[in-house]
Amino acid sequence: MDFERHFTDQLSALKAEGNYRFFADLERVCGQFPKVRNHGPGPDEVTVWCSNDYLGMGQHPDVVAAMVDVAQSCGTGAGGTRNISGTAHHHVALEHELADLHGKDDALLFSSGYVSNWAALSTLGSRLPGAVIFSDSLNHASMIEGMRHSRAERVIWRHNDPEDLDRKLSAYGPDVPKIVAFESVYSMDGDIAPIAEICDVAEKHGAMTYLDEVHAVGMYGPRGGGVAEREGLMDRITLIEGTLGKAFGCFGGYITGSKALCDFIRSFASGFIFTTAIPPAVAAAATAAVRHLKTSEIERMRQRRQVARLRERLDRLGIPHLPNPSHIIPVMIGDPVKCRMIADVLMESYGIYVQPINYPTVPKGTERLRFTPGPLHSDADIDHLVEALNGLWKQCALSRQVA
Amino acid sequence: MDFERHFTDQLSALKAEGNYRFFADLERVCGQFPKVRNHGPGPDEVTVWCSNDYLGMGQHPDVVAAMVDVAQSCGTGAGGTRNISGTAHHHVALEHELADLHGKDDALLFSSGYVSNWAALSTLGSRLPGAVIFSDSLNHASMIEGMRHSRAERVIWRHNDPEDLDRKLSAYGPDVPKIVAFESVYSMDGDIAPIAEICDVAEKHGAMTYLDEVHAVGMYGPRGGGVAEREGLMDRITLIEGTLGKAFGCFGGYITGSKALCDFIRSFASGFIFTTAIPPAVAAAATAAVRHLKTSEIERMRQRRQVARLRERLDRLGIPHLPNPSHIIPVMIGDPVKCRMIADVLMESYGIYVQPINYPTVPKGTERLRFTPGPLHSDADIDHLVEALNGLWKQCALSRQVA
Repeated sequence: MDFERHFTDQLSALKAEGNYRFFADLERVCGQFPKVRNHGPGPDEVTVWCSNDYLGMGQHPDVVAAMVDVAQSCGTGAGGTRNISGTAHHHVALEHELADLHGKDDALLFSSGYVSNWAALSTLGSRLPGAVIFSDSLNHASMIEGMRHSRAERVIWRHNDPEDLDRKLSAYGPDVPKIVAFESVYSMDGDIAPIAEICDVAEKHGAMTYLDEVHAVGMYGPRGGGVAEREGLMDRITLIEGTLGKAFGCFGGYITGSKALCDFIRSFASGFIFTTAIPPAVAAAATAAVRHLKTSEIERMRQRRQVARLRERLDRLGIPHLPNPSHIIPVMIGDPVKCRMIADVLMESYGIYVQPINYPTVPKGTERLRFTPGPLHSDADIDHLVEALNGLWKQCALSRQVA
Repeated sequence: MDFERHFTDQLSALKAEGNYRFFADLERVCGQFPKVRNHGPGPDEVTVWCSNDYLGMGQHPDVVAAMVDVAQSCGTGAGGTRNISGTAHHHVALEHELADLHGKDDALLFSSGYVSNWAALSTLGSRLPGAVIFSDSLNHASMIEGMRHSRAERVIWRHNDPEDLDRKLSAYGPDVPKIVAFESVYSMDGDIAPIAEICDVAEKHGAMTYLDEVHAVGMYGPRGGGVAEREGLMDRITLIEGTLGKAFGCFGGYITGSKALCDFIRSFASGFIFTTAIPPAVAAAATAAVRHLKTSEIERMRQRRQVARLRERLDRLGIPHLPNPSHIIPVMIGDPVKCRMIADVLMESYGIYVQPINYPTVPKGTERLRFTPGPLHSDADIDHLVEALNGLWKQCALSRQVA
């Protein structure tokens, strides 16, 4: 077989569809976020409008100082898997901090949020004999891959629909081990799950609940514990999964739950056991971010203000965006080539960086620009963005939404 | 189902077998490695003998300085996936450095070596229609999970046996896309693959070659490009996979290969696309480590000296260890409970930290202590280790090996 040719052909097909990805080559400048240096086409300085460092914690002085201090005191890497010389005291401290954040007995760190979902779901699905996983239809790729890897039976229920979940669960007897897997904030539409209703249904059927809060931790709840914290539901969730790479501004993922649950995953998950632990300095930085957001409300308040402000300005101009109760503002384009073109013009002519979101991240035909206003976007940044979009909407004769 | 009870029962079974894992709670002290602070049972300071920071690069001043500088200039996290605002100029620079290290056109970074294997093999296996993967019988868990996830047919060939590989490949016609997957240094036995012979066989059958060099990069070859570099074989390998978390002292994994191959994996691998990029500061530290080891021989020479010295001392006392041509010295115990007990005594009475290696990392019955002497272990450290082992061998009436 001519492997090179196969690779090239597949890439050409992707390009023809408009789904080939070009990465923006950027350089964050500590203290100036969301302004960043641009090493690619366009102005030398651009404003990032699509970061998952939702609260700018990646440049918070306490977080940076923790990373610097521990890099200097402990070095750069963990040097091994958690079991073989790689557990640092900083990992242990972070796990305590995270268990406390979610009101759970224990927590377990992973290389990433992706790996935590993949490893936890594949371990639960494969090591609970006869388990069936009931998965929200819009669950993230990492959850889908974990379920698929487990080889457990998977039942898809209609997105955010507890009644459909109830019907699907009813088809299985009481002795079947059931796992209900869902997210709180869905990252591409920004809608939020009816967690209480889902818990009601899960409890009625004796199912365990698996909740991905990666787009919520740090931002929702009085201590940043996520939507389940805000709604007083953390104790009804068996396993809460989160990330340190978004609102906490660092890197890594985790699960929290009972001591036995975490110990079970710790002891059997290949994706946990056979991989190098995250750098102690990263763990220390994440601990500082989690700790800070347990008591500070300023970042969350200011984020909500800027999100509301951008929504209100878009509405006034009739620029169509998906309504939702979260911090994510998806402006729908519906075509991969147009989506990339608009993003290119925003970058090159206006210094506004928003990545076009195309397939496979979202279904074909729902291509979009996904804006994530944060506490560090100024009112002037919002004005500039809205003026640019307004100009483009005129120029490209894009459809407006009547209020 | 009573989930808690199931978890507890499974953990009890693991404990009864002697395979339950206790993590040592340590704190590296920059500049004093392999001496570390111990937060668990035993002395406050212990010497690590089982680190994968094989050359101590995790505390090298240039590597630490790079992490500190970039944490201060760019902040702590990447803030997104590589596609959505997460590509930093430091990632791009590291990928260039790695492509150059292996004499390839391109490289692609992943969250970890585990993820790079899992994502690359699952993508190749699932996206090359009808592909068959020929896997060495001792390949790492991350490769096994990747192949399993791909759903491609998998054929296991006898460990390090090109003749068996040839027989297995011969059973498939010339039109079947074939991938030969193997490692250079096998981490638990420390043996090294006959790469040239494997390439001969693979080329004869038109198979692509996939080589995991995670336990070799930095340490073998004149520029630290691994065993394939040392033997002048890099251009015969289609894909070389490596890690930044072992001899480079940092965190993260990568693949290198042709532009089309890397772009193919970049464009289709779920485990690459849907996950946050590693922190720019980690990428910068890794770049510094890779760069340093391209020209510096001191670390490699000193490592080889200390490995030879420990082997010679063990031989003199008849303490049995697996012979191999690498830097890994496995002292065989063959029983999980005894293995843990000896490790506990070494830690608590002698301040020597070596993690017992039990199932599932190695097959049951081959439990071992795995020593990895490095350039920073002093001759006195080796004397102390050998005296401790000698005392334990007497005390526990363990069998000796006649020279």
